[in-house]
Amino acid sequence: MMQNAYFLSLENMADGTNVPFDHVLNNLAFNEQGLIPVITQDASTHAVLMMAWMNKASLLKTLDEQRMVYWSRSRETFWRKGESSGNTQQLVSLSVDCDGDALLCQVVQTGAACHTGRANCFFLDVDYAHAKVYVRGDASV
Amino acid sequence: MMQNAYFLSLENMADGTNVPFDHVLNNLAFNEQGLIPVITQDASTHAVLMMAWMNKASLLKTLDEQRMVYWSRSRETFWRKGESSGNTQQLVSLSVDCDGDALLCQVVQTGAACHTGRANCFFLDVDYAHAKVYVRGDASV
Repeated sequence: MMQNAYFLSLENMADGTNVPFDHVLNNLAFNEQGLIPVITQDASTHAVLMMAWMNKASLLKTLDEQRMVYWSRSRETFWRKGESSGNTQQLVSLSVDCDGDALLCQVVQTGAACHTGRANCFFLDVDYAHAKVYVRGDASV
Repeated sequence: MMQNAYFLSLENMADGTNVPFDHVLNNLAFNEQGLIPVITQDASTHAVLMMAWMNKASLLKTLDEQRMVYWSRSRETFWRKGESSGNTQQLVSLSVDCDGDALLCQVVQTGAACHTGRANCFFLDVDYAHAKVYVRGDASV
């Protein structure tokens, strides 16, 4: 990642300072595919639920609809989380990181975040000392 | 993201089942640059501290050294977090997500995670209703 001059210019701003949203939006470090990684965290349990991707249009839909709308890289279309499963994610807050190349969203999660039915997607725990990876939780779909 | 057959094969395994670490490692969905996104979370506060990238070698160094060793895309070298600042991240646990294309690490963070001196990197809060983005916290470096 090259340093992003716009985000560099924000670094030393004081607590509580604000800048226009469209400046931030237009300087986000979308990758070559026009995508930015999004971390989704449960606003109440603080569990990290999943990581997915947004393009500029899905980010704006997320903010307009106040629910998580990712970009599906496999289906190449908007992915309104929970549209088929009912396991929606209501947006609580959205933050941008220091170099403008990642987003963090706090959500109210309905049901399971993971398509396997597990509460979150990070259910494979590495036990490096024993050279094993453990499955946590049972699938329920 | 195409579906990853290896990770599909793990989905329905029961709670507590294990598989060899090297199978997981060799099937991780590193991108075209050989990188995988890593979410770093404070093991005690559960704050999401930052998002960065690892290649296979930096992942193995992280596990061997039990501290976060990212891959710096700008410097194209290993990035032993805290090597210059002293703000190291001791690894507590490392998990892989359902489709093998993201890692979640719990860490003990020494000092600030963000290079600006703020506790974490996600200090730009979007206030979409007012079309503003607020800076949270003061820089201290």
